[in-house]
Amino acid sequence: MKGADKFERISELARRRGFFWPSYEIYGGISGFINWGPLGAVMKRKIEDKFRDIFLRRLNFYEIESPIIAPERVFKASGHVDHFKEPLVECLKCRRKFRADHLLQEFADLSSQETDRMSLQEIAGEIEQRNIKCPECNGALSEPKYFLTMFQTTIGPYSESVGYGRPEAAQGIFVEFKRLYEQVRERLPIGFAQIGHALRNEISPRQGPIRLREFTIIDLEFFFDPEKPQCPFLNEVADESLRLVLAENRLKGDGKPVKLTVKEIVAQGLIKVEWHVFFMALAKRLLADLSIPEDKQRFIEKHPWERAHYSTQGFDQEVYLDRWGWVEVAGFNYRTDYDLKGHMMESGVDMRVFKPSEKEIMRVEMQVKPLIESISQTFKDKAPKVVEALQNVDPNALAEALKRHGFYEMNGFRITSEHVEVIQKEFREKGRHFIPHVIEPSFGSDRLTYAALEYAYTIKDDRVILKLPRDIAPIQLAVLPLVSRDGLPEKAKEVYRILIDEGFTVEYDDSGYIGRRYARFDEVGVPLCITVDYQTLKDDTVTIRDRDTWRQVRAEIRGLPWLLHNYFRFKINFDDLGLPI
Amino acid sequence: MKGADKFERISELARRRGFFWPSYEIYGGISGFINWGPLGAVMKRKIEDKFRDIFLRRLNFYEIESPIIAPERVFKASGHVDHFKEPLVECLKCRRKFRADHLLQEFADLSSQETDRMSLQEIAGEIEQRNIKCPECNGALSEPKYFLTMFQTTIGPYSESVGYGRPEAAQGIFVEFKRLYEQVRERLPIGFAQIGHALRNEISPRQGPIRLREFTIIDLEFFFDPEKPQCPFLNEVADESLRLVLAENRLKGDGKPVKLTVKEIVAQGLIKVEWHVFFMALAKRLLADLSIPEDKQRFIEKHPWERAHYSTQGFDQEVYLDRWGWVEVAGFNYRTDYDLKGHMMESGVDMRVFKPSEKEIMRVEMQVKPLIESISQTFKDKAPKVVEALQNVDPNALAEALKRHGFYEMNGFRITSEHVEVIQKEFREKGRHFIPHVIEPSFGSDRLTYAALEYAYTIKDDRVILKLPRDIAPIQLAVLPLVSRDGLPEKAKEVYRILIDEGFTVEYDDSGYIGRRYARFDEVGVPLCITVDYQTLKDDTVTIRDRDTWRQVRAEIRGLPWLLHNYFRFKINFDDLGLPI
Repeated sequence: MKGADKFERISELARRRGFFWPSYEIYGGISGFINWGPLGAVMKRKIEDKFRDIFLRRLNFYEIESPIIAPERVFKASGHVDHFKEPLVECLKCRRKFRADHLLQEFADLSSQETDRMSLQEIAGEIEQRNIKCPECNGALSEPKYFLTMFQTTIGPYSESVGYGRPEAAQGIFVEFKRLYEQVRERLPIGFAQIGHALRNEISPRQGPIRLREFTIIDLEFFFDPEKPQCPFLNEVADESLRLVLAENRLKGDGKPVKLTVKEIVAQGLIKVEWHVFFMALAKRLLADLSIPEDKQRFIEKHPWERAHYSTQGFDQEVYLDRWGWVEVAGFNYRTDYDLKGHMMESGVDMRVFKPSEKEIMRVEMQVKPLIESISQTFKDKAPKVVEALQNVDPNALAEALKRHGFYEMNGFRITSEHVEVIQKEFREKGRHFIPHVIEPSFGSDRLTYAALEYAYTIKDDRVILKLPRDIAPIQLAVLPLVSRDGLPEKAKEVYRILIDEGFTVEYDDSGYIGRRYARFDEVGVPLCITVDYQTLKDDTVTIRDRDTWRQVRAEIRGLPWLLHNYFRFKINFDDLGLPI
Repeated sequence: MKGADKFERISELARRRGFFWPSYEIYGGISGFINWGPLGAVMKRKIEDKFRDIFLRRLNFYEIESPIIAPERVFKASGHVDHFKEPLVECLKCRRKFRADHLLQEFADLSSQETDRMSLQEIAGEIEQRNIKCPECNGALSEPKYFLTMFQTTIGPYSESVGYGRPEAAQGIFVEFKRLYEQVRERLPIGFAQIGHALRNEISPRQGPIRLREFTIIDLEFFFDPEKPQCPFLNEVADESLRLVLAENRLKGDGKPVKLTVKEIVAQGLIKVEWHVFFMALAKRLLADLSIPEDKQRFIEKHPWERAHYSTQGFDQEVYLDRWGWVEVAGFNYRTDYDLKGHMMESGVDMRVFKPSEKEIMRVEMQVKPLIESISQTFKDKAPKVVEALQNVDPNALAEALKRHGFYEMNGFRITSEHVEVIQKEFREKGRHFIPHVIEPSFGSDRLTYAALEYAYTIKDDRVILKLPRDIAPIQLAVLPLVSRDGLPEKAKEVYRILIDEGFTVEYDDSGYIGRRYARFDEVGVPLCITVDYQTLKDDTVTIRDRDTWRQVRAEIRGLPWLLHNYFRFKINFDDLGLPI
């Protein structure tokens, strides 16, 4: 592996020892799919559990689990059917297909910032002007068209029942928001998370565990009253400093991060909602807990044209990786009421919440008044349908459309100002109806796991040591008889059994020289090796060896459970485990 | 809810408090999809964690995570493309579609045992003879045809790249077996599990959380040397008694279970492989840990025509549920080498393992010798393809086909005895090549969770108490100030904070009368309520209230962490938590 970059070396280790590798190799491999193996799956789950601990349990937020497959209307409402697509060109000779924007980035020297803003027409023009050909066979390329990057299927035996694999877990929360809100007794602010597989039908994914067609997403949807954006926990992170690459600096060509504390960021008004920066600070700590150093993390503020269609302000959290440079591992978006509003319009179900207040509140609301006679004349027997549909229309959007275009398209009906009157009505209520706003922290679990592996990967005396934090190491302990005779294996198995009964994840190994066994466990990040030797048979003590320093201490077997529980909960450190040898 | 059956009452509670409910209700609902809510998702995960503890950690087996979407060849090799289908009829009038076998069960009084064995022709005959009509509109029904009950999609931008949503997690393990086997240093026997979403495109699912189109499957694939079927852990379960409904008794019309110990089952040869019964005994214990009584569990031995296409001997573990009677929650199948062989044939990759031995072993192997001249004459320029394909053919299957039919179909080529010679060859080796055999315990996580809810659902003094085992209760502790004044909330929040920092899942609640709060927490199965009262302000003690008995004890705050850790790990019981009041 000399000369190999870190990704190659980690991939070799990951494949050999069971962290991750490409799926379906016996069938020639299908890009964009990977397996997490006997060690990787546990490590990945432990990282997800850390998210649960920091973002859910400690904040008293909740996790839900909803299906991966959803009916088409969900993704119409969410905007994905319209927006979740990429420009595609086909080689007219070899019929291979490519991301048109990627070709422009590669052969026309355009940045993704530039291609993101281009229309299909502009892309076509650029391809023609630069005379870009198929990178595989040099054939001519087709006109670009959009390819919907969701996996499509049919639900049940009816071909018109279109469903999609979810590209994010968020919609499963938005669709169910009303019920969730009732279940938590109308608490606001409140967060609901979902951790699960998501699907994106990428045109031609590469980059191993970084760009996947199927991956695990960690979506937290945090709902709050837009009139109360204050975060009461801000103090807990006030002095945490974040490295921000601000959009305005990027426009000026300055990609250097500015280092600011949470307090400063809020004071300078750089982030609109306090909770937004609070979650970013927690995320920075989460990554630090995964051993990713502060200077290898940063937050990029996205330009409007780079943001997802639902986002009003967005930051990507990036980690520096050896092969690819800065790579996004999480996104923090202010989704406003975009999604709930979308589902309210599409389903006709009121997604607003009601907050009572002491004193009466006056508010002005736009209302759509259907002009029945005129509607009947225009739409004949469809008139009742039109009237019904008008009930679910956003009056502001309708008024805006009438003003701009002179008409409003709705379920195939064209409404003009002769069909409706948009009136302003005053309401006096002891409380307010409103659609909660949403801040969304969203992590890629696979990328986090890969990043943690890369930062744990260390060479010492020509050997690999995987310095994983002790709480994400897939195997906690190894129990090893010094030699495989004289009753040592039997004694070691006793110790193994005690630790298994205490709930630890333990491997027993008596094959080969002890040094080679230590090396094997160092390579997969086992924090502690417990060795049973001749002394053990005399006084019931064992040695405990530290993975990172190779130092050893001696401890009594009967004290092990208590010591080790405290060690893995970070209450004590290696030196507290016993007497130095 | 008077007169409602248990399912209705649990569904009401589950929907109101956040255990589970049907998905996509705002869009009219799509049958076969449910959500697990803020309480249900955690409870379900804790049940999955119990499986991990019993079947993986304690046995030193491993978990992996592979994609839900797989290319077509995977399910060709596994037999699903051929076998995973159901008979479907369409109403010629209203165009509704139905499971033909379900209609026969409902309107022709046939059992599922009978319909499972019927061909499409027989089903058509029965529908005609009985004059069965559309149950919705009384229209005539179409000819039955098979409907593939996998969700189909396309991977990437090429329409010929067919993929399916996995109907089981098992294939993700079989496809990767060679690599997994290397990763565990060629250990055999060895188990690999996978817990994840699976998809079955049911024609018209009903039954809430019982029959789902998307569900969580827990598949453990246990690989062993068929010449070494002995289980060394059998002693640990030897006296465990299982209620078996044997296939031979069912044939005689006797559906009563026989109660036998594991020892007796093995001695009588009722189950072919020791590991098979060992896993069944562990599963019985798992369900007992979920509070499902022994007499509400049983194992049904499946008839050959009821078994999945890959199974040689199979038992369903059933639980008695109030609405549906006996319902399968797990299956235990002896899959032999069916799957690895299938992938070996389809991919051409050798799936055999090699076990060295001391002495030389002689074995006779059938080999296919292509007769090139004759092949060239018949197949012309396709001859090289035929020769290549013959390399991956199972010689036994080929010889058998030639004997039976006079020809063998392969990739569209018809091979006869003039094209090949099947010869027997002797090998002498220090070891054996063989395909490991597989026993598969497979659980439905959603059904287990529902069953645990049903058996926890109890009425006491007209109120619901959810007597969940303490290790699967979604909320572990509630901290409650007796009243919401006089500094009690502040003190209670201190206690809350201590317990959160210790890693417990805790709710704080100060709203309303204490009795109503207790009731609210009883209803969702919180094992212990900790109450802060005026006494607390004097001596730093709190009361701890038991959900099931409503008894209370008094304990010091500073002792709580240690006591509660031991309580939740079943090391102590309620009475050990403090002094009775």
